Amino acid sequence: MKVSARNVFKGEVGAVKTGAVNAEVDVVLEGGDHLTAVITMESVKTLALAVGKPVVAMVKAPWVMLMTDQADVRLSARNCLAGTVKSVQSGAVNAEVALALPGGTEISAIVTRESVNELGLKPGVAATAVIKASSIILGVPG
Amino acid sequence: MKVSARNVFKGEVGAVKTGAVNAEVDVVLEGGDHLTAVITMESVKTLALAVGKPVVAMVKAPWVMLMTDQADVRLSARNCLAGTVKSVQSGAVNAEVALALPGGTEISAIVTRESVNELGLKPGVAATAVIKASSIILGVPG
Amino acid sequence: MKVSARNVFKGEVGAVKTGAVNAEVDVVLEGGDHLTAVITMESVKTLALAVGKPVVAMVKAPWVMLMTDQADVRLSARNCLAGTVKSVQSGAVNAEVALALPGGTEISAIVTRESVNELGLKPGVAATAVIKASSIILGVPG
Repeated sequence: MKVSARNVFKGEVGAVKTGAVNAEVDVVLEGGDHLTAVITMESVKTLALAVGKPVVAMVKAPWVMLMTDQADVRLSARNCLAGTVKSVQSGAVNAEVALALPGGTEISAIVTRESVNELGLKPGVAATAVIKASSIILGVPG
Repeated sequence: MKVSARNVFKGEVGAVKTGAVNAEVDVVLEGGDHLTAVITMESVKTLALAVGKPVVAMVKAPWVMLMTDQADVRLSARNCLAGTVKSVQSGAVNAEVALALPGGTEISAIVTRESVNELGLKPGVAATAVIKASSIILGVPG
Repeated sequence: MKVSARNVFKGEVGAVKTGAVNAEVDVVLEGGDHLTAVITMESVKTLALAVGKPVVAMVKAPWVMLMTDQADVRLSARNCLAGTVKSVQSGAVNAEVALALPGGTEISAIVTRESVNELGLKPGVAATAVIKASSIILGVPG
């Protein structure tokens, strides 16, 4: 498998919480971090997701929001991953920002250049990657 | 808090409709407009969301669709905000379009340059910003 | 109606599966392909969605992930559409990739230039467009 998503994390299912249409899946990453994904119940069934099953969690870079100075706020987004900016590559409108997490994982976010300026994003700056649970795609070995 | 999302709206919770996994939250913006967000029940609990609680609603610009000539259609997207194009900043593939709403709120959308041409987007043109409820991230004071 | 979404597919409702907050809607496209959308129950009601009702399904290009060499994986994303790359238009950070499906439908995805290189995307290459059900906006005649 090769995917265009800049973010592909290996892990295993930690828990599954079921609903009528959607389910919430806790994914334990290899480094011990957790991600929460919301997918349809139908996918839980067809992928036979159960605790301990190996999965990959995929997130496209434009689906990641970056945040700084977050001491004064709590978010509804289930995935808030604190790290350090590793690189910034700018285009005309957008920029791709790579964030290094303490455990060694790297997260890629595409944000506007205006945001890069306003948040002062440059290598070494502390920032948090924010990912909605509904933005995560899960994959299992075929 | 500083976030890369181009759209950050202040408001308060107007209503919460609960489900097994997800909840639908009505947010009343300062100008009286409404936004609908779908977030997980877990977030409703951890943020202690209740009617009257101050929140900020965040939406990244690439998550906003723009529409013109909308008289003949109704959409499943819960947030359709009619306004006027204020500015268009073009890159090679994408363009950032700023839309001014009647109440003074400004909404930023990133769309392709092809869309800018096809919809004839330029300052003064009427357009509607379309945002899925599941694209909205809510924040509360920390 | 004119929308900035690069992907607008005509079809009709094939099935509706209801939940407390969300519903899952099966859309049968004109060529016989299927798309699955997750929208709120409120939208199901206000749009009066029922089997056989004509709808358009809209997806912005940045919400589409591309995949190659997919034989060894199954995804939670409900919409995996196999096709062939028709064109690639590159910007500084992003590229817009057009994929032609067997039935004649064309799908547009915006991915990073790095992904274009890593996946070897160029005209004639086989690739799959992956779309989460929650990324689809449905529209009905107004």
